Amino acid sequence: MSFNTFGHMFRVTTFGESHGVAIGCVVDGCPPRIPLTAEEIQVDLDRRRPGQSRFTTQRQEPDQVKILSGVMADPDTGAQVTTGTPIALLIENTDQRSKDYSEIKDKFRPGHADFTYEAKYGLRDYRGGGRSSARETATRVAAGAVARKILPDVKVRGALVQMGPHKIDRANWDWDEVARNPFFCPDKDKAAFFESYLDGIRKSGSSIGAVLEIVAEGVPAGLGAPLYGKLDADLAAAMMSINAVKGVEIGAGFGAAELTGEENADEMRSANDGTRFLSNNAGGILGGIATGQPIVLRFAVKPTSSILTPRQTVDRSGHETEILTKGRHDPCVGIRAVPVGEAMMACVLADHLLRHRGQVG
Amino acid sequence: MSFNTFGHMFRVTTFGESHGVAIGCVVDGCPPRIPLTAEEIQVDLDRRRPGQSRFTTQRQEPDQVKILSGVMADPDTGAQVTTGTPIALLIENTDQRSKDYSEIKDKFRPGHADFTYEAKYGLRDYRGGGRSSARETATRVAAGAVARKILPDVKVRGALVQMGPHKIDRANWDWDEVARNPFFCPDKDKAAFFESYLDGIRKSGSSIGAVLEIVAEGVPAGLGAPLYGKLDADLAAAMMSINAVKGVEIGAGFGAAELTGEENADEMRSANDGTRFLSNNAGGILGGIATGQPIVLRFAVKPTSSILTPRQTVDRSGHETEILTKGRHDPCVGIRAVPVGEAMMACVLADHLLRHRGQVG
Amino acid sequence: MSFNTFGHMFRVTTFGESHGVAIGCVVDGCPPRIPLTAEEIQVDLDRRRPGQSRFTTQRQEPDQVKILSGVMADPDTGAQVTTGTPIALLIENTDQRSKDYSEIKDKFRPGHADFTYEAKYGLRDYRGGGRSSARETATRVAAGAVARKILPDVKVRGALVQMGPHKIDRANWDWDEVARNPFFCPDKDKAAFFESYLDGIRKSGSSIGAVLEIVAEGVPAGLGAPLYGKLDADLAAAMMSINAVKGVEIGAGFGAAELTGEENADEMRSANDGTRFLSNNAGGILGGIATGQPIVLRFAVKPTSSILTPRQTVDRSGHETEILTKGRHDPCVGIRAVPVGEAMMACVLADHLLRHRGQVG
Amino acid sequence: MSFNTFGHMFRVTTFGESHGVAIGCVVDGCPPRIPLTAEEIQVDLDRRRPGQSRFTTQRQEPDQVKILSGVMADPDTGAQVTTGTPIALLIENTDQRSKDYSEIKDKFRPGHADFTYEAKYGLRDYRGGGRSSARETATRVAAGAVARKILPDVKVRGALVQMGPHKIDRANWDWDEVARNPFFCPDKDKAAFFESYLDGIRKSGSSIGAVLEIVAEGVPAGLGAPLYGKLDADLAAAMMSINAVKGVEIGAGFGAAELTGEENADEMRSANDGTRFLSNNAGGILGGIATGQPIVLRFAVKPTSSILTPRQTVDRSGHETEILTKGRHDPCVGIRAVPVGEAMMACVLADHLLRHRGQVG
Repeated sequence: MSFNTFGHMFRVTTFGESHGVAIGCVVDGCPPRIPLTAEEIQVDLDRRRPGQSRFTTQRQEPDQVKILSGVMADPDTGAQVTTGTPIALLIENTDQRSKDYSEIKDKFRPGHADFTYEAKYGLRDYRGGGRSSARETATRVAAGAVARKILPDVKVRGALVQMGPHKIDRANWDWDEVARNPFFCPDKDKAAFFESYLDGIRKSGSSIGAVLEIVAEGVPAGLGAPLYGKLDADLAAAMMSINAVKGVEIGAGFGAAELTGEENADEMRSANDGTRFLSNNAGGILGGIATGQPIVLRFAVKPTSSILTPRQTVDRSGHETEILTKGRHDPCVGIRAVPVGEAMMACVLADHLLRHRGQVG
Repeated sequence: MSFNTFGHMFRVTTFGESHGVAIGCVVDGCPPRIPLTAEEIQVDLDRRRPGQSRFTTQRQEPDQVKILSGVMADPDTGAQVTTGTPIALLIENTDQRSKDYSEIKDKFRPGHADFTYEAKYGLRDYRGGGRSSARETATRVAAGAVARKILPDVKVRGALVQMGPHKIDRANWDWDEVARNPFFCPDKDKAAFFESYLDGIRKSGSSIGAVLEIVAEGVPAGLGAPLYGKLDADLAAAMMSINAVKGVEIGAGFGAAELTGEENADEMRSANDGTRFLSNNAGGILGGIATGQPIVLRFAVKPTSSILTPRQTVDRSGHETEILTKGRHDPCVGIRAVPVGEAMMACVLADHLLRHRGQVG
Repeated sequence: MSFNTFGHMFRVTTFGESHGVAIGCVVDGCPPRIPLTAEEIQVDLDRRRPGQSRFTTQRQEPDQVKILSGVMADPDTGAQVTTGTPIALLIENTDQRSKDYSEIKDKFRPGHADFTYEAKYGLRDYRGGGRSSARETATRVAAGAVARKILPDVKVRGALVQMGPHKIDRANWDWDEVARNPFFCPDKDKAAFFESYLDGIRKSGSSIGAVLEIVAEGVPAGLGAPLYGKLDADLAAAMMSINAVKGVEIGAGFGAAELTGEENADEMRSANDGTRFLSNNAGGILGGIATGQPIVLRFAVKPTSSILTPRQTVDRSGHETEILTKGRHDPCVGIRAVPVGEAMMACVLADHLLRHRGQVG
Repeated sequence: MSFNTFGHMFRVTTFGESHGVAIGCVVDGCPPRIPLTAEEIQVDLDRRRPGQSRFTTQRQEPDQVKILSGVMADPDTGAQVTTGTPIALLIENTDQRSKDYSEIKDKFRPGHADFTYEAKYGLRDYRGGGRSSARETATRVAAGAVARKILPDVKVRGALVQMGPHKIDRANWDWDEVARNPFFCPDKDKAAFFESYLDGIRKSGSSIGAVLEIVAEGVPAGLGAPLYGKLDADLAAAMMSINAVKGVEIGAGFGAAELTGEENADEMRSANDGTRFLSNNAGGILGGIATGQPIVLRFAVKPTSSILTPRQTVDRSGHETEILTKGRHDPCVGIRAVPVGEAMMACVLADHLLRHRGQVG
């Protein structure tokens, strides 16, 4: 039983393989009369699009999104708006190189999902990783762009805060810097460093992991829900569902293990604004429900498993062999996960907004 | 919209507040003809039960579970077995002290869900935290005991691996040690240290965080599913839904961010056993599907928010005040989260087993 | 995979067998701050309670409901209100006679679910039908009483409109009459007739089918949803899930097959009230969405399968035999389905109200 | 909250409007390694395709289906098979005439979903009925064709058994006849009659209702589930979700209301085949679970609401007016619902097969 739908009231169902005809998604539950154009969705897709720097895969995909359903010209205003019916979004695959797959067709690439898909299904789409390819995340970004339209007062932004062992200097954090370098890095100095650092990794045919941070500002206090639909539980699942993610933390996260109760619990003051809490170790969530503070989460992305160094593995028949993954790959797959993480955050928040409105009115 | 059900085919719905009549759960989807007695469930409940050492809450609850439905004597064997219908489990609350709640009735305790429940619902059950109390986790442990019966070949165990800044020495890991100390600590030396360390924290009225590790051995390769029902995504949500958890990681987890592709991707050999992979940075999951290796996850628990030091806060009317939380509390709430984490792991695996069997046959 | 939960945002999970310790349900998703007492729920339960006339089962069950969770005294008003957390309702079984079950333990009663439960699960709870007993419907009535509290402006009422081949005279319809006879019959004359008619059937140890009608007034136009969550689709499933129901129709129902387009389509006028439509063949639903007219549905209940005439059947080993079902049974099980049908209607409407509010605001 | 997904383990999400770019669906949960080609799906689509006789809409749509994902050449056999990942199916709209919509843009067509969509969403796609058009059912037929592949031993067939007041003669039932007339009618004589009967209705610009019967043979005993996932409850919802359906009944259906217990309960004999039961008033389902007999259901379809006679209605502003619906319409929309009913039956059975396999093994 695979599950290609996420969300409860704002529901996204995705489909498609890396080297198939097309990828896409169906966004169901979007409220009516919300202005929405393909161009707006395209803005987010372009941020994730491959081939924009030497630090991401050289696959050339325009990633042009088409809206197949769920919108029409508002009879009163003429603007294109949602109708409340499912919004189908389609992105055609155009750069599926007719390469020779014989190397990976019968061998399991270490760190990839080759072995496990085969163990589960008895076969796997070996062309570019099939369904397990990071290409699927383009559809998440498209869905996230729709989710953002439901959250006009919420600002969801992401950044790369660590590459390999190198963490950014938080004192240098500048959101404007994120769009100015190919790493989504908010620390200008560290971005300059990453340029040479990742060049070295790229040239050696290696790869490296990363940690990303996603922040949502403007989330109203009260959003979220106990107990198994906690906002942080849904966010953890959403981030962990992204390719190559191995850890998620909220607020103080793993650091909370080292804190005392006095240090950790965020004290409160009477201001009904950003200064209501004297700190934000909670990361904006208590008991699964938003406090009104910024929601802050981080997730860790493992290094790209496709590298130029030969690795030991087995083939489909169980015989031992070696494999060396050539082709177009990201030296740090974590980089492009920034817009994906933002999209997942937006989708979870949109879902919770509709759920909250339904139960609490 | 609250969500008090988790799982898809093995579904658990929990109910109850800390100081209400009773807590309980309904386990739906359990296969028929599985031997199940209240005594078996009680074993797991007793491991989590409060009041067993000076390091956990002094609340005295026998936590006796009753099976209200879903079992009968097998007409052929006479043994009590499941019938395939919902299994309702009930645990009565017996030690709800008729204490004076005036201190917390109108004030928001920092670090607790008081403010957020009030923000969401317009009121909250202030008696012992109501629904947000860790007491609810007893019902998870009961459900987990049922889940274990569906997984006879899977061994799910947990341990405390860090308290405050103090990590165990993994070279000392001894699973047998876990049951011999009040900390579920697998490192005998560190357990001795924790005794005095936590005594100090307890006596000062403070509290401390912890990191726990849950390991599942014997999970067959192929269990799990892409893409939004990934085994690791479901595990992340399950752990994050436990009270006070702020982070979850699988395998190398956040450490994966510092690894290169060569270091991270687990190479394979032909053995069809525990030596098939040369390492387990994946933590037993690739592409959301089990590799057959042990599934290894860790989660961070923040320090108990109820402490004896007065803290700044506001009351329901928004006026600034101070609060000091007296009463029966755990100096390290993370300790008793070990059987809870095991239970959640067992529930997620049981759910995936049924889902897998359904789709793949 | 059994499914003992219904509804999406107003979700009810039921449990329990006819002759077990207790039956009950967990109502999840109920909005907060709604006044709710056990006494209010009891009113509906008492309407369904067995043993109130010679025309229903003689089982003596007080059917006293207890609220185990999800309510508290409102800190402002003192009235008992919902908190937004799951409401667990428990009804103990008190009249499980320790009768001899040897007759039905190994034989399949025709028309009952004995054979099919055994075919599915490999065993069945033969004591009073176990989970397949109509006793389970008490928990639906309890949940429906909660649902009604969410729908203060909606009036949901039901009536028996046919018993055997005898239909009521709709010109005699008087809602007040329903509570005055043991058949929930709105036609005073027909009720008098049913008294002698059903006495004859009861004395001969036979049984008879019935048709019930449930009407909901005050449902706002716009409630409901395309396409697989249509209000009528959800209602059809809800009614068909009640024991012994074999058919469901909305508005003109099967009669619509005989109508022309001119006769069927309800014309509209400008009044924004009950006279907006000139007829109600739609039964208050078009395209799965409420028109604002009364929602009118009927469902057919087959005759009780337990009768005093010996019937041919087989035993668990497949050998041919006869069976004669003694014990406490309803000569017309359809009668007590009236409050059950009302409850299911209320639950579906409550669910749709929350869903509508969530998506459309 | 709209719901455009149906099924639990075999899940179908549909999208698209009558006059949009395309309609389609995503089939999620289909087991792997099942041979599947677009040609196989096309066979079912062609049975439903419009414009094949003068008795259905003259809209010309080739309804060519494309498989966008979820299949690949089996590495061992070369045959195209499913991979276990979502199967996206796309059907482009080609005959959306650029007609003048001014007549229906601002007026509510009686019997259509115009008023209710507007009441719910504040706007509606007036072009050909938008999402509420019967055109959407093409995607259900496509999904049903996939479902059939999961059920190789089950035969699902449908037929028209009543048009207007005219019922077929069941003694004349011949399944082979169904494909030989444009009415899916199994009674050759009645089909001849319908030809002239419906011609009269068509020429007068009127329309008429119908009753259809769907039969599934080969469904194994044990499939299905109590209590809210009953096979008959799911089937009732599935059929009621089809456009214009106003009633559903299983087995004896509404006729069961007139039966006594002796007449209704199907007696059993020892044969483990089609003669195990001496009758089939249950329609193949007891307690929500299949008996192994043919599953037999009927559903009623109201007459097409678009007719050539002017009808009273109101416009969007609430002003009274008249409307006359010109354009391409079916005089008996029930006819083409036969393959749709079959498809829904197949989808529900496929879903239950996977669920059953999951829980019971």
